[in-house]
Amino acid sequence: MVKDGLLITFEGMEGSGKTTQIQRLSAVLSQAGYAVCVTREPGGTPISEEIRGIFLNPNHNEMESTTELLLIAAARAQHVSEVILPALDGGKIVISDRYSDATVVYQGYRCGLDLNLIHKLNRIAAHGLSPERTFVLDLPVEIGLKRVQQRRSAMNRLDLEDFESHNRIREAYLAIASQEPDRITIIDAEANVDSIHELIKSEVDDLLRTKGVERKL
Amino acid sequence: MVKDGLLITFEGMEGSGKTTQIQRLSAVLSQAGYAVCVTREPGGTPISEEIRGIFLNPNHNEMESTTELLLIAAARAQHVSEVILPALDGGKIVISDRYSDATVVYQGYRCGLDLNLIHKLNRIAAHGLSPERTFVLDLPVEIGLKRVQQRRSAMNRLDLEDFESHNRIREAYLAIASQEPDRITIIDAEANVDSIHELIKSEVDDLLRTKGVERKL
Repeated sequence: MVKDGLLITFEGMEGSGKTTQIQRLSAVLSQAGYAVCVTREPGGTPISEEIRGIFLNPNHNEMESTTELLLIAAARAQHVSEVILPALDGGKIVISDRYSDATVVYQGYRCGLDLNLIHKLNRIAAHGLSPERTFVLDLPVEIGLKRVQQRRSAMNRLDLEDFESHNRIREAYLAIASQEPDRITIIDAEANVDSIHELIKSEVDDLLRTKGVERKL
Repeated sequence: MVKDGLLITFEGMEGSGKTTQIQRLSAVLSQAGYAVCVTREPGGTPISEEIRGIFLNPNHNEMESTTELLLIAAARAQHVSEVILPALDGGKIVISDRYSDATVVYQGYRCGLDLNLIHKLNRIAAHGLSPERTFVLDLPVEIGLKRVQQRRSAMNRLDLEDFESHNRIREAYLAIASQEPDRITIIDAEANVDSIHELIKSEVDDLLRTKGVERKL
C-alpha cells in the first residue's frame, strides 16, 4: 500500500516515556514544515475511544483474552480507516502511541493467544497497513511501574497486573524487535530524554529523506 | 462439543415477535421443570452490553463494517465464555435472542463483508459453539418496521437504515435457512401468536427428547 505520508509507531510499557518523546518528535517535525498527526491506540476516534473505555475499565476483571483481542481489533479497524489512512493519503506523518505490535505483545505473549490468529486479525483490522518505523522504549519493569504509580490518580486494568505479567510484556517487545530489526528500533528508556529524542529524530530524518515525504509549509 | 444443555436461538428482524415467543417458550419449559437461561446478542454480559451500546448508538454513523463485525465478535466471545458455555455445562436450555446467524446476515449480506471471514470470526468468538436449533421469524419488512415504530421511543442505528437494507436482511435469513434446513426453521411471523408458539414448542419438545436433556425439578 503506497501512501504519500509515513506511519511511525511508539511502543513500550506505561512509564517508558512514549508520550514525552512523541510530543518532542511531533513538535520538531511540525517546525520543520511537515504535517503531523499524533494519535493513539486503542483509541484515536470517538468510537475507538469508547472501546478503549471498555477495554481498560478496572472493573472488567472477567474480560476473556479473546474478547480483548477482538475489541482491540475493532478499535483499530475504525482508527485506521477513519484517521490513519486519510492522514497518510494527505501526505501527513502519522505518529501513533501503540499500534499492531502492542496486540502481538499484550494479547499474544501476555495472554498466550495464538500468534497466527493475532497476525491475521491485525491484517484485517489494519487493512494491511504496517508502520514504516517503530520505536520500542525499553525499561526495567520496576522503574516503569514506579513512574506510573507516581503519575496516575487511578490505575487501569492493565496497570494492576502483576510484575511477572509486565515482565513478559517487556521480553515480548525485545523478542519481536529482534525478529524485525529493520523496522523496530529498541531504545534504552532510562537514558536522558534529550539524547533519546536526538536518536529518534535522526532515524526519522533518514526515513523522511529515503521516502521523499514532502514538507507542507 | 458435547454439552448437557441445549442452545436454541431466535433470529429475525426487529418487530418479528422474537421477544414474545422467547418469553412464551421459556415459561412453558420452566413450568415443565427445565432450567432455562434467556439471553440476547449483542449483549448478555455487562461487558457485552456495553459493546452493544457502542454498536447501536445512533450517533455512530461513521462506523465501518469491519469495526461492526469485530465488535459483535468481541461481544459474542465474552457472552459465550461467561454465560452460554457455563449454562450449557450446567444442563440448562439456553435461549438466545440472536446469535451467529445474525452476524452472517447483518455484517455479511447487509454490509457485503467476506462470508469466509465472518464464519472464521464466528468460530473464534463462539469457541466453536453452534445452536442446536434456530427459529427465524419471517415477516414482510413494511410490517416489521411499522411494529418497531409503534413501540420504540427512539430508533437505534440499525432501525434507521433504509427499506432496501431491511429487505436484504430478510432475504439473507431465507437464504441461510435454505442452506441448513435441519437446523434452521423459518416461521411465518404474521401468523397467530399462539399457533407460532405451539409450532416452536413442538419442535423443541422433539429436540429435548432426542438430546435427552434432563429436567431439573
